[in-house]
Amino acid sequence: MKLLIRIAYLGTAYCGYQVQPNGVSIQQMLNRATEQLFGYPCDIVGCSRTDSGVHANSFCATVAQRGTDALVTEIPVERVPQALSAHLPPDICVYDAQWVPANFHARYDVIEKEYLYRIYNRRVMSPFEVNRAWYLPKELNEADVERMRSAAKQFLGTQDFTSYMAQGSKIVDPVRTVTRSELTKEGDLILYRIAADGFLYHMVRIIVGTLVEVALGRLDPSEIPEITKSRNRERAGLTAPACGLYLNRVFYSSQKINRQSFDKPSIP
Amino acid sequence: MKLLIRIAYLGTAYCGYQVQPNGVSIQQMLNRATEQLFGYPCDIVGCSRTDSGVHANSFCATVAQRGTDALVTEIPVERVPQALSAHLPPDICVYDAQWVPANFHARYDVIEKEYLYRIYNRRVMSPFEVNRAWYLPKELNEADVERMRSAAKQFLGTQDFTSYMAQGSKIVDPVRTVTRSELTKEGDLILYRIAADGFLYHMVRIIVGTLVEVALGRLDPSEIPEITKSRNRERAGLTAPACGLYLNRVFYSSQKINRQSFDKPSIP
Repeated sequence: MKLLIRIAYLGTAYCGYQVQPNGVSIQQMLNRATEQLFGYPCDIVGCSRTDSGVHANSFCATVAQRGTDALVTEIPVERVPQALSAHLPPDICVYDAQWVPANFHARYDVIEKEYLYRIYNRRVMSPFEVNRAWYLPKELNEADVERMRSAAKQFLGTQDFTSYMAQGSKIVDPVRTVTRSELTKEGDLILYRIAADGFLYHMVRIIVGTLVEVALGRLDPSEIPEITKSRNRERAGLTAPACGLYLNRVFYSSQKINRQSFDKPSIP
Repeated sequence: MKLLIRIAYLGTAYCGYQVQPNGVSIQQMLNRATEQLFGYPCDIVGCSRTDSGVHANSFCATVAQRGTDALVTEIPVERVPQALSAHLPPDICVYDAQWVPANFHARYDVIEKEYLYRIYNRRVMSPFEVNRAWYLPKELNEADVERMRSAAKQFLGTQDFTSYMAQGSKIVDPVRTVTRSELTKEGDLILYRIAADGFLYHMVRIIVGTLVEVALGRLDPSEIPEITKSRNRERAGLTAPACGLYLNRVFYSSQKINRQSFDKPSIP
């Protein structure tokens, strides 16, 4: 059995999830914490690779002894979250842990992922949202938000998302199925949630950049299908900054994991 | 006419509102920003003195040219928030500004203040709440929260709050009138709001420390009136940490300020 852990992190101080030659990564912190807690080096396999400055409310990773498919420990699984968190810096926490079969793969067994993108829309930036949301100072009215909402719907379904993929990406098949693409406004925050079976490189951030073009009146929602069909990155909006992006939920098949325990609320 | 500004800040990096010999204060940042924007040194009078690490969603301060009761500027008042914020670090912002009479006093004319205290109650601390809430790892159940709520009500009304005042304070009259003392639970957060005509030194933090004693079963809500009557600081709970405290709202008489513009929502 491997251990599947769910973690939350504020990504501001990190070069991203994955170990990099320059900069401190989330994975590096997990490597150190698991070795300190379990007493031997571990392999950590993450569900995704988040970019520098991107956050996670619910990132999943498996832990096994290095070079094996198993983790041996006398620590009861329900104590693992607090025990591992104690070996992590305050901007990373482990809030759930469960046993999964040795053949479980944290990345390949993902059936759906959901991202949240936060935009702070007010003439001045809130000190509480610095590095946690994209600051959009031009105050949007209800009609602007309604146009964004209408544009967001155009991303639903199975489509070729080449127009919303960072140039130079090596992905062979650019078709993805988006099952949720919803925009809500809560006070000064505009929250965008998108779920899909997978995402191309920078896909969420380019879609958000495109939605903001719509909000600012530079694009009409009706132009989205044409932009998508063009398969031309230059027709979509700019890449929204990393600081507003959160990996929000990760779904695995109920055959491989204990869904009930997995439905524990994420952070926050 | 003076300028009344409303500011929000994340107090983590500051030694408090007021200028101190050691450490950087919010007031010092405001002194610098106003001098840079208006072109001459200003007197800044704040509504309150917040401690090191305490935050504000809505702190009020007046700005006048040093040694005078007036501010002379050609900058339209509606542009002041963005213009001043541009001269402030990202953890402080000015989000509202209005003209007030020369005899207006930011501290003496306060008729009521409201504080918010945030407690994060989960076995592991959220990376998003570090320095922004008090971490209480023992998970409270509904009955515990109900007892806190019942205890919170005991602080309402006009009472002598000596038991909830930091020892060594120089306040002569320890009687205050509490008009709101409410506790709510939102997900993993316990939010406590208290409004009064004034507060003794550390009063909110000691009341919160006492409410947490009730939550943990070390005190019963029915003991609160006795503790209050004892006028003995040692009978109340510990002083809750500064990081969970927010100055949330400040009320002035409608005769002195333009209430309508003042009712603009605070941050966040």
